[in-house]
Amino acid sequence: MFLNPRRLYSRTSSFFTFPSFSKAAKEDRGDVAYQTIFAIQPLSAGTFAILPLANKVLERLTKIIDHEFQAIDGQKIVLPSLSHSQLWRKSGRWDRYGPVLFRVTDRAGQEFCLGPTHEETVTQCIAALEISSVGTKLPIRLYQTSWKFRDEDRPKRGLLRAREFLMADMYSFDSDLEKCQETYDTVTGAYDRIFNRIGLPFVRVLASSGDMGGSVSHEYHYCSPHGEDVVYACGTCEHKINGEALKDANDTRCPSCSSEMQKLQGIEVGHTFILGDTYSKLFGAKSFQNGQNLPLQMGCYGIGVTRIMSAAAHILSQGLKLKLPDAIAPFTVGVIGPKQGSREYEDLNPRAMEMADQLDRILPSHRVIFDDRKWSIGRKLLELKSSGIPHQVVLGKNGLELHSPDTEFTNVDGPEVIHNFFKELVVKRELL
Amino acid sequence: MFLNPRRLYSRTSSFFTFPSFSKAAKEDRGDVAYQTIFAIQPLSAGTFAILPLANKVLERLTKIIDHEFQAIDGQKIVLPSLSHSQLWRKSGRWDRYGPVLFRVTDRAGQEFCLGPTHEETVTQCIAALEISSVGTKLPIRLYQTSWKFRDEDRPKRGLLRAREFLMADMYSFDSDLEKCQETYDTVTGAYDRIFNRIGLPFVRVLASSGDMGGSVSHEYHYCSPHGEDVVYACGTCEHKINGEALKDANDTRCPSCSSEMQKLQGIEVGHTFILGDTYSKLFGAKSFQNGQNLPLQMGCYGIGVTRIMSAAAHILSQGLKLKLPDAIAPFTVGVIGPKQGSREYEDLNPRAMEMADQLDRILPSHRVIFDDRKWSIGRKLLELKSSGIPHQVVLGKNGLELHSPDTEFTNVDGPEVIHNFFKELVVKRELL
Repeated sequence: MFLNPRRLYSRTSSFFTFPSFSKAAKEDRGDVAYQTIFAIQPLSAGTFAILPLANKVLERLTKIIDHEFQAIDGQKIVLPSLSHSQLWRKSGRWDRYGPVLFRVTDRAGQEFCLGPTHEETVTQCIAALEISSVGTKLPIRLYQTSWKFRDEDRPKRGLLRAREFLMADMYSFDSDLEKCQETYDTVTGAYDRIFNRIGLPFVRVLASSGDMGGSVSHEYHYCSPHGEDVVYACGTCEHKINGEALKDANDTRCPSCSSEMQKLQGIEVGHTFILGDTYSKLFGAKSFQNGQNLPLQMGCYGIGVTRIMSAAAHILSQGLKLKLPDAIAPFTVGVIGPKQGSREYEDLNPRAMEMADQLDRILPSHRVIFDDRKWSIGRKLLELKSSGIPHQVVLGKNGLELHSPDTEFTNVDGPEVIHNFFKELVVKRELL
Repeated sequence: MFLNPRRLYSRTSSFFTFPSFSKAAKEDRGDVAYQTIFAIQPLSAGTFAILPLANKVLERLTKIIDHEFQAIDGQKIVLPSLSHSQLWRKSGRWDRYGPVLFRVTDRAGQEFCLGPTHEETVTQCIAALEISSVGTKLPIRLYQTSWKFRDEDRPKRGLLRAREFLMADMYSFDSDLEKCQETYDTVTGAYDRIFNRIGLPFVRVLASSGDMGGSVSHEYHYCSPHGEDVVYACGTCEHKINGEALKDANDTRCPSCSSEMQKLQGIEVGHTFILGDTYSKLFGAKSFQNGQNLPLQMGCYGIGVTRIMSAAAHILSQGLKLKLPDAIAPFTVGVIGPKQGSREYEDLNPRAMEMADQLDRILPSHRVIFDDRKWSIGRKLLELKSSGIPHQVVLGKNGLELHSPDTEFTNVDGPEVIHNFFKELVVKRELL
């Protein structure tokens, strides 16, 4: 498009900490961190630097979420991390959360926590805005994608249980419970589309509302032997439920059809709640209905963005070879020319660079990386494939090749075939 | 483009907390907050909720910064907010920062601060990655745009002195001081382009390195009577310096040409430093040069993103009427149809909506808002103009009108004139 005159494909040589096997192998400590070592650096216990490759994965996830939330009139905001103890005392969660809450005292002796979630803050904010007086239409659907804090007892398992994690949290406000239920269905519809676009199979299960308060709650899980949650799925009637939400932990028959349910291990990546007026009553967040001010009916909804990134690598990768769903891969295609110094280098390398440039114009911005390292074609191919990049285009003495997860073309007749392949991909997958 | 099938203009009625004069007037408390009340909500002292309109301004600023930083091979990362006291004790800043540092103790008794800046963290991270062993090429230029923390003594003046603020901070690593100076010039070149694109006149002044350590330092200021910094500018030779960096506070002659310098008030919005090896030596961040491991030469660079948003409103707005530079306005154009219930409504309102749709296709995504409130054209025009939206297109019984800051067209001959005006704008301004 005319807006981006300086659009350029990336190059591995200038890409900071592009994975290298020797380094990755050294870091293999039998936990999940090694799978993402290409892109994250553990710092103090439970905190990580998100390096450029992982940041690209988080940006893609964020874009998918933005797109689907904005399609249901979700509006993006940012709430502060520092949350005053007064609010949390009012809701009773200052004590209930216990040691999981990071607590800070300011120079004036005021106490704050670092928000692990923001029901108190957003409800206080809505109350302060006096929306009935400014005539704001309902429903209100606000969301943010921001870093949250939890003082985990034993931070481990990499980003799956970090002390700082990226979460997309939405808060909805409706005039009555029926409308709140409609919003709940609309938002969980967007959740389904988000998880479908990411492309990893997921299950949605009935859940317990736990600390949050409220009446209805569902969780989204990726099934994996690495999961810490136990969920039950009925093969007969599709009923699914978190083990914690069972009325009797020993009775694992389906409550709908009495069949014995299957036990699965899940990694929780999303949680949705109907909260009702639990928070709006406390904080005075009201709307004017039928001649009186009534408390708003709330829902809240969280997607674990860093958890998804970590879980996806966890589930799809084999050993040191990182694999991610196409929709969130750091790059879509790696382009490889002949080995520097080889007979065909002078002739073919400029053509490989041109190929990278052309693919960069077909695909959305920043999805192409050109491998300009001094290695052989074989080594570059192996390393790019093992770095979570799904497609590779190779131009060497054997002609033009395409390596894709489901298909491999060798001796491709001219670049048009490659171009059409990627154009097709863009149309089919709605790549962002 | 084919990638965005659900592209839609926004509507004021569904836009949460679109400004309303009655509300704004009530909140006028003589400080700068009122100017941004349309879009931010003060919570506890020094913290704010960034509401949708302000979030759009921050997103536009972030995009400009991303574009210019990535054009100089800057790579985006995220560093954790929790920064271990060990690191800050090593650099000596745990004590030197004093009460400005928010401090947190975790459940195991470990002490952390909430990062107001990240020299320690990024240098530790680079050291841990052992870049010489993985063959990463220098220079390394890493940046993040993230929320930082300062326990301000008296948080006031809205976002200009908030306890949580959005900052774009870059850190550069070079093999020697000469290359570090080259990177410094490259990054400050990107700074100039960023500030030029934002479009508000700025000055770059020599500054003191203060707490940071290092040898060379410059600040970027917006000149304003509201500024808390004093800077001196020489009218003869272009020398500019922060008052704090003067060798003798009473001697305000230009050190280059001895002319008397002019005293100005500035709002600091950027600060750049050559740090040398102050941090890299301490944390062991080295590269392999001429047969030995030598400490990397560092630079660091910060842009105050929320400060720019606040300062711009501060400088350009008049009373309750918010004005922002075009490049960071929450929307580029507001489209207004006839008053609901008027004679021409049925006929012209669909055409106004079509106009919004067409402009949405010409401009980058999400730059058009259609005003579907029930008010008169005059009231809608006044409120959109006063909400920081630079251009308005009106379709009413008097025909088609364009209201822009530098020009007004009434009775425009057909929509093509309007379309061409905005196409031109896109080409000229490189709107993102």
